[in-house]
Amino acid sequence: MEHRVVIVGCGFGGLFAARALKRAPVSLTVVDRRNHHLFQPLLYQMSTGILSEGDIAPPIRSVLRRQANATVLMGDVESIDVAGRSLRVRSADGIAEVPYDSLIVAAGAQQSYFGHPEFEEFAPGMKSIEDAHALRAQIFGAFEAAEAEPDPDRRRSWLTFVVVGAGATGVEMAGQIVELSRRALRRNFRRIDPADARVVLLDAGPTVLAAFPAGLQERSARALTRLGVELHVNAPVTGVDAAGVDVGADDPTVRRIDARTRIWCAGVEASPLGAALAEQTGATADRAGRVEVLPDCTLPGHPEVFVIGDLMSLDRLPGVAEVAMQSGRHAARTIRRRLDGDAEGRPFRYRDLGTMATISRFKGVASIGPINTVGFLGWVLWLVVHLVFLTGFKNRVFTLANWTLAFLGSSRPQRVISLAELDAAAARKPPAPSE
Amino acid sequence: MEHRVVIVGCGFGGLFAARALKRAPVSLTVVDRRNHHLFQPLLYQMSTGILSEGDIAPPIRSVLRRQANATVLMGDVESIDVAGRSLRVRSADGIAEVPYDSLIVAAGAQQSYFGHPEFEEFAPGMKSIEDAHALRAQIFGAFEAAEAEPDPDRRRSWLTFVVVGAGATGVEMAGQIVELSRRALRRNFRRIDPADARVVLLDAGPTVLAAFPAGLQERSARALTRLGVELHVNAPVTGVDAAGVDVGADDPTVRRIDARTRIWCAGVEASPLGAALAEQTGATADRAGRVEVLPDCTLPGHPEVFVIGDLMSLDRLPGVAEVAMQSGRHAARTIRRRLDGDAEGRPFRYRDLGTMATISRFKGVASIGPINTVGFLGWVLWLVVHLVFLTGFKNRVFTLANWTLAFLGSSRPQRVISLAELDAAAARKPPAPSE
Repeated sequence: MEHRVVIVGCGFGGLFAARALKRAPVSLTVVDRRNHHLFQPLLYQMSTGILSEGDIAPPIRSVLRRQANATVLMGDVESIDVAGRSLRVRSADGIAEVPYDSLIVAAGAQQSYFGHPEFEEFAPGMKSIEDAHALRAQIFGAFEAAEAEPDPDRRRSWLTFVVVGAGATGVEMAGQIVELSRRALRRNFRRIDPADARVVLLDAGPTVLAAFPAGLQERSARALTRLGVELHVNAPVTGVDAAGVDVGADDPTVRRIDARTRIWCAGVEASPLGAALAEQTGATADRAGRVEVLPDCTLPGHPEVFVIGDLMSLDRLPGVAEVAMQSGRHAARTIRRRLDGDAEGRPFRYRDLGTMATISRFKGVASIGPINTVGFLGWVLWLVVHLVFLTGFKNRVFTLANWTLAFLGSSRPQRVISLAELDAAAARKPPAPSE
Repeated sequence: MEHRVVIVGCGFGGLFAARALKRAPVSLTVVDRRNHHLFQPLLYQMSTGILSEGDIAPPIRSVLRRQANATVLMGDVESIDVAGRSLRVRSADGIAEVPYDSLIVAAGAQQSYFGHPEFEEFAPGMKSIEDAHALRAQIFGAFEAAEAEPDPDRRRSWLTFVVVGAGATGVEMAGQIVELSRRALRRNFRRIDPADARVVLLDAGPTVLAAFPAGLQERSARALTRLGVELHVNAPVTGVDAAGVDVGADDPTVRRIDARTRIWCAGVEASPLGAALAEQTGATADRAGRVEVLPDCTLPGHPEVFVIGDLMSLDRLPGVAEVAMQSGRHAARTIRRRLDGDAEGRPFRYRDLGTMATISRFKGVASIGPINTVGFLGWVLWLVVHLVFLTGFKNRVFTLANWTLAFLGSSRPQRVISLAELDAAAARKPPAPSE
């Protein structure tokens, strides 16, 4: 019987592992609770109306349709039996046991509220298509509600957007909301000027883009401020409710911000599968729930179990797509080498290819090898790299076309919302203003 | 003060009325509970993964952004006070009174279950983006569940799709599911052959496409059968439940069909606003809830209130987009003529431009003046007409590109679903099989 490989999760890590097994003599099963691979770095463009779901989330089985050794199973991994080498997978119509000879756990990470799960209700995260969908309804719905609102204070609160966390996602989100309000929604309203929108970007730490070189941080902060983002660092969010956020800031004017839209881009924690694996095998899980692995990305005592990507704790590697892709590929190569009779585990060596983010159209920040830049060059680099890594030729062409219309023009074609969606959000409605 | 026109609903009727008032000296308010104009004839392409939401549902305020006299209000019309000439509109953040001098009620129609509202839970309709979204999850999810299902009977039930109602929407839906299963999903699965899918199209009446000439009906029926659709006419659905449908057919083999996916395309009834208007003004509402209007599309006794499109009962006109567009334009022109001092109401004359539907790729049915055709020509006509009427140049270009990929290739790019969505559908799960 062929060697059975199971991959749990088809984000960047899982997908790159699966592809690297294309010509391997294995029987591969990819399990994911969603039917799509999500290109997370462009999620903010979906929630601001530039791209459609399909542009950034191709079906896994379509991506792998020419890989004959791969079976895709849409299901939720309820538990992993490491001793018995088998998973319990819940699909739409029941539970199945899925046995394996080698296992690659690439279940990734989810939004973290740092011990404040109650914040989630009032400040949704940005990790899935569903999140982006809900956020899109909130963002565009806020402008709709402001147009309908006669009371100036309430209108101002509808037009205030608070983005929590000034990493790449938060910076891109805040920048894109400014673009929306200052440019893309121009001429769409009669009673409000969408350009009146206040976009606040908060970070608990001392800087934006903490993962970038210090010189770029300052320049990025200046670029954001010039764009119109109200940036506050050293400003930890201490409370989130239906009407706004409380901020532990020195500046008394931002200790309380009334805002009907609050977006949480502040941090991630590993999938609970990490803790479950650690408990079962005696491995150590770090504070963020990531599993400490051996240098070859395997679980201590279980060379047949690989933990990769955001779920893996190794050498303080950052939780970025590039680490997931490279560790996924490493796991796949290790399995192939073993099948070729080379049992020696080689350590995973991460090759840092750099990091980048957009600030606004035509302005990006990039740190790639010797290149450290904020501006047009950074934006072009960002654009090229994201196009290259986007899955599927068709998605690349359509995304490039959409970007041309969005950045040269002001098109935001994906803006479908209904009052029913806003009503769902209005379960989070603040009380009537006390006047 | 300028003459205040309010349009309720921005489907084909409302949108064409609004546009026809572009250069009129009026202050126009368009009220809709959704933020988008929906190009309903292509809804079935969204639910089968060809087009994205944005392709067929541009934001109303974006469509009207260059029409300076138009204000768009996203809100639900709770009531119309005809005597006081004012509407109560609920928006995301409260209730507003919206007064008018002229009113155009274009609230359209919704799915009708012909006195069986309990069917809706088990056989969702096809009238809104939300409907198409839910259906898309069900259709693609059914193939996912079948792939995960070992039991052959349950698998067969997942792979059975029942479309109720063989009008244009039902025919297009059934044809597109066959295309999916026989062509687009090829090579996507390992355990099932999606081409095994059974697609059943039921109609209570004696023919498919009842609105088309008789010669075309028979040819269309043959084309559908050749394609692989299992067609049953004179087959009224008498029951719908979580496991399938009951059919009042002579053929005993179709009296009960086990099917996990059931799609209701059988009929429409007017928006409840119609009945409310009728009750208030003493006008007559017909069986489908449509309001009988005078020949100039106004309410008897209320020349300032126009009722158009699917909400209007006049001369037994069919509930099609073309009637809505033309009656919308007629109402707008009447208002403009009155403002020019010409108070005489002219009767609405409907100009029938024909009717068409697709059966599969490269095969359509069209009846336009002297042209009556089933085949490639019908498909080309369908394609050209739908492209021309689709709103927005960008949407036309992207839709044409998507069609090229879908019909020449087999691309179905919009297929995002998650297990959570299937779980929501699984509230409608049948009991475990009794073996």
